[in-house]
Amino acid sequence: MTDKKPSKASTPAKPTSPAKPGPSKDTKQTAGLTVKRSEDFSAWYNEVVIKAGLADHTDISGCMVIKPWGYALWEAIQGWLDSRFKATGHRNAYFPLFIPERELKREAEHFAGFTPEVAWVERHEGDSERYALRPTSETIIYSIIKPWVRSWRDLPLLLNQWCNIVRWEVKATRLFLRTREFLWQEGHTVHATNEEAEQEVMQQLALYKELAESVLAVPVISGRKSEREKFAGAATTTTIESLMPDGKALQLGTSHNLGQHFTKAFDLKFTDKDEKERHPWSTSWGVSTRLLGAVVMAHGDDRGLVLPPALAPYQAVIVPIVFDKEKESILAAAKKLGSALASTARVHVDDRDAYSAGWKFNEWELRGVPVRIELGPKDLAAKQAVLVRRDTGEKTIAKQSELPAALQRLLAAIQRDLLAAARKRMDAATTAVKTFAEFQKAIEARKLVLADWCAKPDCEDALKEATAASSRAIPFEQPKPGSCFRCGEKASVRAYFARAY
Amino acid sequence: MTDKKPSKASTPAKPTSPAKPGPSKDTKQTAGLTVKRSEDFSAWYNEVVIKAGLADHTDISGCMVIKPWGYALWEAIQGWLDSRFKATGHRNAYFPLFIPERELKREAEHFAGFTPEVAWVERHEGDSERYALRPTSETIIYSIIKPWVRSWRDLPLLLNQWCNIVRWEVKATRLFLRTREFLWQEGHTVHATNEEAEQEVMQQLALYKELAESVLAVPVISGRKSEREKFAGAATTTTIESLMPDGKALQLGTSHNLGQHFTKAFDLKFTDKDEKERHPWSTSWGVSTRLLGAVVMAHGDDRGLVLPPALAPYQAVIVPIVFDKEKESILAAAKKLGSALASTARVHVDDRDAYSAGWKFNEWELRGVPVRIELGPKDLAAKQAVLVRRDTGEKTIAKQSELPAALQRLLAAIQRDLLAAARKRMDAATTAVKTFAEFQKAIEARKLVLADWCAKPDCEDALKEATAASSRAIPFEQPKPGSCFRCGEKASVRAYFARAY
Repeated sequence: MTDKKPSKASTPAKPTSPAKPGPSKDTKQTAGLTVKRSEDFSAWYNEVVIKAGLADHTDISGCMVIKPWGYALWEAIQGWLDSRFKATGHRNAYFPLFIPERELKREAEHFAGFTPEVAWVERHEGDSERYALRPTSETIIYSIIKPWVRSWRDLPLLLNQWCNIVRWEVKATRLFLRTREFLWQEGHTVHATNEEAEQEVMQQLALYKELAESVLAVPVISGRKSEREKFAGAATTTTIESLMPDGKALQLGTSHNLGQHFTKAFDLKFTDKDEKERHPWSTSWGVSTRLLGAVVMAHGDDRGLVLPPALAPYQAVIVPIVFDKEKESILAAAKKLGSALASTARVHVDDRDAYSAGWKFNEWELRGVPVRIELGPKDLAAKQAVLVRRDTGEKTIAKQSELPAALQRLLAAIQRDLLAAARKRMDAATTAVKTFAEFQKAIEARKLVLADWCAKPDCEDALKEATAASSRAIPFEQPKPGSCFRCGEKASVRAYFARAY
Repeated sequence: MTDKKPSKASTPAKPTSPAKPGPSKDTKQTAGLTVKRSEDFSAWYNEVVIKAGLADHTDISGCMVIKPWGYALWEAIQGWLDSRFKATGHRNAYFPLFIPERELKREAEHFAGFTPEVAWVERHEGDSERYALRPTSETIIYSIIKPWVRSWRDLPLLLNQWCNIVRWEVKATRLFLRTREFLWQEGHTVHATNEEAEQEVMQQLALYKELAESVLAVPVISGRKSEREKFAGAATTTTIESLMPDGKALQLGTSHNLGQHFTKAFDLKFTDKDEKERHPWSTSWGVSTRLLGAVVMAHGDDRGLVLPPALAPYQAVIVPIVFDKEKESILAAAKKLGSALASTARVHVDDRDAYSAGWKFNEWELRGVPVRIELGPKDLAAKQAVLVRRDTGEKTIAKQSELPAALQRLLAAIQRDLLAAARKRMDAATTAVKTFAEFQKAIEARKLVLADWCAKPDCEDALKEATAASSRAIPFEQPKPGSCFRCGEKASVRAYFARAY
């Protein structure tokens, strides 16, 4: 399914910091970051993910643990997507983790694309064949749904699955970005016509774009994938991608028109309204826990994670500033304020006794909570509270009676500003080139490059070899292209290129 | 974790129908059932699960696919439990599917209990050790959370995980009841004192009991497990069990006090308030997709599945009875009625054109929807609708203006009546005995048997050998027991016994 690049083109040119082997020793989260984003982006990323409590390495090479704060972000994504999948008629199901070897082999191109990363189960006595752990579920799903599709009445079949995926990568682990096991959703749909399949592909891609931009505040480009970059077994792959602050593109979600490739390989047929048997058209589409990596990279700073309010488990945290004398009254006021704001936002009252206010400030900054609400004796006396924006550090004082409205405005502003800032950064790092010399210079400067291109697989291979960059997306709306920036032949598309995760 | 019986004691005495090898060929769901519940319970069960669209066998020996209607039931259970877990301070996380062999071996009794059913991953070049696919997650979780617990401030640690589990069973597959892969939740908590751990265990058991009785309408007995039946590695296991209509007990959920067994095995320590280092106490608890099997068996009949309203994805289905002439007006009225009832219940309007009303009646009966609402030309003229109870077949006519109230009453009555009927059946099949002769007779009559017992492992082994029955639960409230019904020695408990799934 998604996230699958048949060939790998990620920056051998500049090696990133190696992933820490084994779990991190320092889990005292308020220790703060020791690496600046501008100094070592990769080490900074790893530290934010671990210290913000999102995920960590484990003793199992290549496997991460998703910690509660990270899992809460994934749950927010799940909730947002799942309700929309259902509203458009999709139903969840659960297919086996195991794929018989002969099923995995049925679609030849698909098998060739995935087989190097497949983990297999050791055979038990009596097992008739070898089982793979799903690297994606097309092959097991098609072998199972075959009897579900008999007539045009059974179509469209609109399925989705939330599950774990196993790809036995040999490269170094990057938390959320490259691990041997990750979580995702994979949609699988079957349609009577190619037009319907195409419509489904585009509907889901639009949904992913909305998720990325409206919820994660991560701006994306979208388009088709090249022949070399498309999903193994797909007719066409569409993608949303974003450029991260380190100048590498990250694929955030993909939506594939599988044509009749899989329905033919699995001999899935339906009787159409004209009583004729036909192979239906199918699609698959998915996003994974990799999205959390995008959020960290797009918004994080030298104090830690910065969460967009639409995604944040807590949108605001009330920190009572407690002195012995007024302790009880401040704590009571903080709880009352929490209740008063409960219908406005997801507000948490940090009433822990064992930690100081300063410690709490640091912790919630590290964890990326969008707004901190401070409540001390002076504020209580003045019937006010102090609001502090995580993204800018800006402080405002609001009367308690006006707090719901003030908080709502502030959260909307943060959501908007995070997207705007990320978009501005991506726009500034995007450039159009005409020649291969310009292209090389732009790629070395870690840009997202737009160029006219012949789109031939051989040309892409040569390009990757020379620059470690690959085509990222071919926009749906195309101007009349000129000549290929690399080989000089007639261009067929204008495409985005970058080095990629 | 849960559902784990260190020894197996299920009815070798009377073999059940063998599971169908491979996926069922007949998936035309309205074909109706071909087996009566009273004639062959096991075959009937299999047929209901498949034809109601809950699950099916697959080509992978021992693995099921959970189909959309079945998965929707699991989602209802997830939603109910998850909100309650969170309300009591538990947070979700995700730990790796893979467990290094050396970690799995750390708690000796645990390893011995699970190792026969473990599936292992084939080694890849460079893999330093052998990995198991989690048969339960204690060992991987304790190895990871060790650095999360340092001080009393970090306790209690209240975690939960929703995931897939692999147990390479060699016995024949029983959909939902015994498959090589299934879905569950596993709670894992760590506490500063044994009292707190014990409180957690009982809180979660009470929640499972509420789920079983209030949502699934499945009555349960609860209590402790015997030494032989407890979870491998636990100090004590508590359980909820129900007697199915075929006279076999089904374990629905378990909650374990792990004592310090695992924290000592993994050398997990915390600094207590008195500055001393201590091993904390821990618990684990879980329910699985097996619960869906209980619902099928407890309420199903010869026309298919019967769902309790609290669990049903659709609580009522409106079936328009359409004749060509009034087609448009009836369909419009059905949709209007659906909207009018949307705030009362989960109502679905079956407006499919390709199927007759009779076909739809059969399908929704098979799928177990609690109430069918029929709307035909006569009803439209009389501003009424016909309500049909799935459980009793009883029809009532209600004015459309009174429908919301009538539907609400009906759903509440069905929920109550299903539990009452199941409880009546279980009570009637429960009997107290004094002697081993009485015991054998009661077990042969497929009863749930209550008897005074010495509770010694050897006595239980002998009992299983002789009768294929095992102790199911030792109630928390105990009378003063007399002599052991089997060995005649002094009894220490009064316990429930049965043959079990």
